Amino acid sequence: MRSPHFLLIQPRRGLGWEEGRRVGGRLRGWRPVARRGRARGRGGHGASASSLQSRAPSAAAPPALRPPVRLRATMPAVDKLLLEEALQDSPQTRSLLSVFEEDAGTLTDYTNQLLQAMQRVYGAQNEMCLATQQLSKQLLAYEKQNFALGKGDEEVISTLHYFSKVVDELNVLHTELAKQLADTMVLPIIQFREKDLTEVSTLKDLFGLASNEHDLSMAKYSRLPKKKENEKVKTDVVKEVAAARRKQHLSSLQYYCALNALQYRKRVAMMEPMIGFAHGQINFFKKGAEMFSQSMDSFLSSVADMVQRRRRPLFRPSCPRLVDAVAAPSPFTSRCRCP
Amino acid sequence: MRSPHFLLIQPRRGLGWEEGRRVGGRLRGWRPVARRGRARGRGGHGASASSLQSRAPSAAAPPALRPPVRLRATMPAVDKLLLEEALQDSPQTRSLLSVFEEDAGTLTDYTNQLLQAMQRVYGAQNEMCLATQQLSKQLLAYEKQNFALGKGDEEVISTLHYFSKVVDELNVLHTELAKQLADTMVLPIIQFREKDLTEVSTLKDLFGLASNEHDLSMAKYSRLPKKKENEKVKTDVVKEVAAARRKQHLSSLQYYCALNALQYRKRVAMMEPMIGFAHGQINFFKKGAEMFSQSMDSFLSSVADMVQRRRRPLFRPSCPRLVDAVAAPSPFTSRCRCP
Repeated sequence: MRSPHFLLIQPRRGLGWEEGRRVGGRLRGWRPVARRGRARGRGGHGASASSLQSRAPSAAAPPALRPPVRLRATMPAVDKLLLEEALQDSPQTRSLLSVFEEDAGTLTDYTNQLLQAMQRVYGAQNEMCLATQQLSKQLLAYEKQNFALGKGDEEVISTLHYFSKVVDELNVLHTELAKQLADTMVLPIIQFREKDLTEVSTLKDLFGLASNEHDLSMAKYSRLPKKKENEKVKTDVVKEVAAARRKQHLSSLQYYCALNALQYRKRVAMMEPMIGFAHGQINFFKKGAEMFSQSMDSFLSSVADMVQRRRRPLFRPSCPRLVDAVAAPSPFTSRCRCP
Repeated sequence: MRSPHFLLIQPRRGLGWEEGRRVGGRLRGWRPVARRGRARGRGGHGASASSLQSRAPSAAAPPALRPPVRLRATMPAVDKLLLEEALQDSPQTRSLLSVFEEDAGTLTDYTNQLLQAMQRVYGAQNEMCLATQQLSKQLLAYEKQNFALGKGDEEVISTLHYFSKVVDELNVLHTELAKQLADTMVLPIIQFREKDLTEVSTLKDLFGLASNEHDLSMAKYSRLPKKKENEKVKTDVVKEVAAARRKQHLSSLQYYCALNALQYRKRVAMMEPMIGFAHGQINFFKKGAEMFSQSMDSFLSSVADMVQRRRRPLFRPSCPRLVDAVAAPSPFTSRCRCP
């Protein structure tokens, strides 16, 4: 009943497999969450140390931090996992898989850091919206302060009203930019993380579970006594192995597909948010430059004139002799009799 | 020895003085620090309730929150405290002083709120500098990630380099704006608070101390026995009264001067930071619009093209029969034999 073919497609023992396992094991358990420390330990650290030679990263990176040379040397032009190799599950395929897994791990770490940086930009933009809103309100509030001495305040009130309008318009631009950054910069990279990276991570787990299950059923099969009378038991175990094989095969196909898809999505995912960012900024500056036009310049220079006029020393002690009087010896003769 | 003149210029008893004291008492102890609750209680609360009628604030404000009608009615065109009235220190002068003090208190509260709003804008601008700096660094970091599968990354790396340069240039503009906001918006209003408002507050305290000292020496003088043999003691007390009078007079002159100066500075202080703000924004948008010119547009559309090209479904299962094979009944016959 045991087919030689069966043994061929299950080379679970031997050097090749063990090596594949070890390489894969380095990435075992990675998840799409930020783990900066590990990322640096693997690649970022060497990179920051050699940042001046960043134009030649593979030459500059310490050999210890690079993927096994053998894998790199034997698979120089690989850009996808071949699905037809999923069933055979050879040591070579497992080794190649570990390279894809390492790439996905690096990508996850990098994506998390990039997302963090983009969310910070978005957060600052959002805070600017709130800050300009508050400033505009505060400028309008001057009128409502009920100053005990309100004489001559009309000019200030109307000027602050105008400034409040300017800040309001600026707030509209900032709000629009914030929305644009959220929709075209932050959202795409979040989607990439939540969809593509999480999918790969989930499928990795499922593949691991299916592989373990298959290993268990294979162990059971290999422990079967060779006696004839156990034919019924043997048939059951073979059925179990077949079911586990199907499950593992299906999960490996899905996992390979996701890893291949990730390689295609990766480049788009990195550039798409920045296109959104740049378009948002272009729009923002275009509208802003239109808004702060020459009419504003003339308004500002008239306000500046007003301020300059007010800055001249308008007020002096109206009765200089009073100040002398303070130093007079007796309080009974110090009263001012200015006309 | 007691001159009628002396009694004339010290009307410390009677309705007029008491009333002036009461009005002044409402503002007793104000300091140039934020006390939003009190500010709202006095004027802001009524104002926010009637924000729709903001164009007619004096009509809309509840009468209870406005300064005493008598003061307003009798001093409609007052815009400064007369220094020659400082020595006489009449109830009318004290009442007028309380109006100036109330105005200074309102101004202090308002200035603190305005400063808070402006500092928030500055803070947001500063955070934008830091955020763009981080984003630029993160874009450059892609190259240094040591991806296990780096094939075809050159295009992504050079594009992200370009974007990093764009973000750097944007960062320069943001940094310039932040500096301008600090120098021409936040600094002038901080100086107004620290110099003008704090000066008034300090002089108010000194004036209060001098007044108390004078009150004490006057009380001593009034308790003097009328016997001839105490002429020596009387002379000493009169000297003490004279010294206290001089001190109070000097501090009142300084206090009046500071309050008058505040009225002039007030309007400039409110408008100056907004001129700085507007000039900063004009400069920012002008340079930004120049930076994000048409050359950027063509770059962006070429990147967008690249992204679109990559978005087409490049990858399909290379061996469809493999997927069927997963559902095959036996693992021993499921191996693919695709050519």
